[in-house]
Amino acid sequence: MTGADRVIIIAILASVVVAIIGTETAFASENRSAILWAEFGFGIFFLAEYAARLWSVAERPGPGSDWAKRFVWIRSFFALVDLFVVVVTIVPFLLPGAPILRLLRLFRLAALLKFGRFSMALRALGSAVIERRYDLFVTGALGLVLLLGGATALYWAEGKVQPEAFGSIPRAMWWSVITLTTVGYGDVSPMTPLGKVLAAVVAVGGIGLVAMPTGIIAAAFSDAMQNYRDRLAPSDDEGTMP
Amino acid sequence: MTGADRVIIIAILASVVVAIIGTETAFASENRSAILWAEFGFGIFFLAEYAARLWSVAERPGPGSDWAKRFVWIRSFFALVDLFVVVVTIVPFLLPGAPILRLLRLFRLAALLKFGRFSMALRALGSAVIERRYDLFVTGALGLVLLLGGATALYWAEGKVQPEAFGSIPRAMWWSVITLTTVGYGDVSPMTPLGKVLAAVVAVGGIGLVAMPTGIIAAAFSDAMQNYRDRLAPSDDEGTMP
Amino acid sequence: MTGADRVIIIAILASVVVAIIGTETAFASENRSAILWAEFGFGIFFLAEYAARLWSVAERPGPGSDWAKRFVWIRSFFALVDLFVVVVTIVPFLLPGAPILRLLRLFRLAALLKFGRFSMALRALGSAVIERRYDLFVTGALGLVLLLGGATALYWAEGKVQPEAFGSIPRAMWWSVITLTTVGYGDVSPMTPLGKVLAAVVAVGGIGLVAMPTGIIAAAFSDAMQNYRDRLAPSDDEGTMP
Amino acid sequence: MTGADRVIIIAILASVVVAIIGTETAFASENRSAILWAEFGFGIFFLAEYAARLWSVAERPGPGSDWAKRFVWIRSFFALVDLFVVVVTIVPFLLPGAPILRLLRLFRLAALLKFGRFSMALRALGSAVIERRYDLFVTGALGLVLLLGGATALYWAEGKVQPEAFGSIPRAMWWSVITLTTVGYGDVSPMTPLGKVLAAVVAVGGIGLVAMPTGIIAAAFSDAMQNYRDRLAPSDDEGTMP
Repeated sequence: MTGADRVIIIAILASVVVAIIGTETAFASENRSAILWAEFGFGIFFLAEYAARLWSVAERPGPGSDWAKRFVWIRSFFALVDLFVVVVTIVPFLLPGAPILRLLRLFRLAALLKFGRFSMALRALGSAVIERRYDLFVTGALGLVLLLGGATALYWAEGKVQPEAFGSIPRAMWWSVITLTTVGYGDVSPMTPLGKVLAAVVAVGGIGLVAMPTGIIAAAFSDAMQNYRDRLAPSDDEGTMP
Repeated sequence: MTGADRVIIIAILASVVVAIIGTETAFASENRSAILWAEFGFGIFFLAEYAARLWSVAERPGPGSDWAKRFVWIRSFFALVDLFVVVVTIVPFLLPGAPILRLLRLFRLAALLKFGRFSMALRALGSAVIERRYDLFVTGALGLVLLLGGATALYWAEGKVQPEAFGSIPRAMWWSVITLTTVGYGDVSPMTPLGKVLAAVVAVGGIGLVAMPTGIIAAAFSDAMQNYRDRLAPSDDEGTMP
Repeated sequence: MTGADRVIIIAILASVVVAIIGTETAFASENRSAILWAEFGFGIFFLAEYAARLWSVAERPGPGSDWAKRFVWIRSFFALVDLFVVVVTIVPFLLPGAPILRLLRLFRLAALLKFGRFSMALRALGSAVIERRYDLFVTGALGLVLLLGGATALYWAEGKVQPEAFGSIPRAMWWSVITLTTVGYGDVSPMTPLGKVLAAVVAVGGIGLVAMPTGIIAAAFSDAMQNYRDRLAPSDDEGTMP
Repeated sequence: MTGADRVIIIAILASVVVAIIGTETAFASENRSAILWAEFGFGIFFLAEYAARLWSVAERPGPGSDWAKRFVWIRSFFALVDLFVVVVTIVPFLLPGAPILRLLRLFRLAALLKFGRFSMALRALGSAVIERRYDLFVTGALGLVLLLGGATALYWAEGKVQPEAFGSIPRAMWWSVITLTTVGYGDVSPMTPLGKVLAAVVAVGGIGLVAMPTGIIAAAFSDAMQNYRDRLAPSDDEGTMP
């Protein structure tokens, strides 16, 4: 990772932070011009960076005229991501109401972090998920059945008493998801004794099942990373994080 | 898994989705005829499939007349599941108010997924539970004691102040289950300082205990799957998922 | 485990269930006499069982007169537990308002389950906790510091705005415990932006720490059970659960 | 750990408990003089201890006059921590409104626990975090993206309906953090069907990701502790906890 890359990463993170804070009207209305200037500055910066890259790509070794090389580069994946970042910075000036687009600049980060240790860990995570796909499919399918079974049970037990919350299976599935993930907002909960008994059974029986995929991926990811480390060690161990 | 199996799986999933959505009155009253036609279509489809299977079973090699083979098949477990699916599709037309029966068509899926990798993972999960039955029994029994102890403590501390929520041990057990599973709806929570201290002790001490069975099953399941993989590799590794 | 033991276990469980249900006034007032007769029956049963054991102990081989043996047995730990069960069954008849005592009959179960596989798993759990005592002490101490630090931060940020909930550090600790265990009743939550930022930091940073002891014990317990299994296998593997 | 160290640890813990309870006005106003006397006593105690240490340091072997040795000691890290404890005990008498400072006496504990087994476990935890820094960085970054993505999705779906809770991305991030950590206070939850569907997807997909760092650290910590144990055993195994 070169020094220029670091500057770009910081610029992207800063522009994302500005875009996030800019959605808060209480703050944005007071600092309207500051946010506009910051966004304008980021626009200039990303445009200048795009132009500089476009220009310098002609100096790469290889056949073809300067503009031929540049057209090849423009159609490359990372140049399109770069262009995309420039566009999402400028478009919201023209299309008010589309500031969420600005968060898509985070994709640029993924392109920059593609190399080095970070990428290795990402690949380890991906391969862990692929290696355990049957485990995940089975536990996921059982979890889905439990989700549906819990929703049906509560629809049956509470549908008449709380039609707003349990009056249909899709409605009851909101309760089911929020309970089995142990989030438990409490906006919806059973009130009848029968509903409470069924909910307790679903909660006790189901939480383990929903938590299992996490455990499976965590273990596989941990193993994959350990393998990478064992293969790299000790020559690479002193390397700093990209 | 043959192509016909895939079509049946899709038909079952589609019929289950229609059955789920059909319970939502806001949607169902507007799309009454569409849902009826869809259910009618599924009924025809499952009936036709059942008839086709019943007919073709006569062509299997073996002694006995065609109808003798068919009667043997009708009494087989999977044919009964098939018949059951046909019945639960048709019965709600005759018995309005029994649409939950339609979800039982999911059992048919289990029969279809009985073969292949999915089944292997299910068996691994089952054997993991059986292998660790003492671990699960011990942690489960301790968890039950904690559940009961927590409910008793809060019944003692809060029973007078909140008779609706903690006025008896069965009532307090609802709090106990929802707290120890970390769901925490908040419909019921201690209000007195003493109740809060006891609830904090129960929460800190008990959450680990309730989470342990999950960890135990996840580890055993992961190990069992790894063993299957090691035994199959590398000849079977390229196999696609059923 | 003999057949008599099974009968006693069932009697204890039944008596505990009756004691639990008996605290629900809605049920108890309607079934007053049934509950009284059931409790009376359990009292007779446990008393008879105690007398039978006291009598039969004289037939054990060994020196000393019959009554000398009986007095030795009366002072033994398990006989005291037996006596305790008899007492807690009879006392609530004399001391109305002490029905919680009846739940203490569960101790009798522990005495009966002392032998066999269940006991082995309990010992494995105990030895896992002891083996990892430093790990648990360190993570527990860090968890306590985080609990206290979170409570202090929210006391500082929200104490003025919500004096009822965050007006002192002990009050804020209720929030802290319920948040770090991820129960999250929602009876108490930060309202100011600063309080929300601090609470988010505490939640993200602290949940891992509070969940770690569970992971440590679960892993150690799993390993200990595996060791027991490896040592016993294959001769003992067919044994049924006690 | 000497006997004097034990006395100091108990004094620090007692002074912290008094400082915590002292923030509860309901208690503090009734026991004003008792708390003042306790704090005064702790002040005297820590001051006397500091003076005793300052005095006795002159008797250490080494060149230089007594006062030269004392000035060296005063500037040492642990003497500064000692002095800090004395100051935070006395300052709140002069500066009312700064009682939180008293909790900083806990730092003294860290200095005392620096040696022995406790320190070993702390180092194991630290080295586990460092060893797995890439794993943690990757899962942390993915978790952050999910946090931001969930907040943006709900801002988009519910921003108009619940402007107070989801009217900007920073506001929606409060929901996002409390949901992905599974705390789920319920002060803020989606109300529209679209918002509920998105929230369910975020909850199911994201909880695993947020829980992964915990699993990774717990596993690495467990392994590091096991390594320490294996290296020390059996010579050190009988050692008591410091």
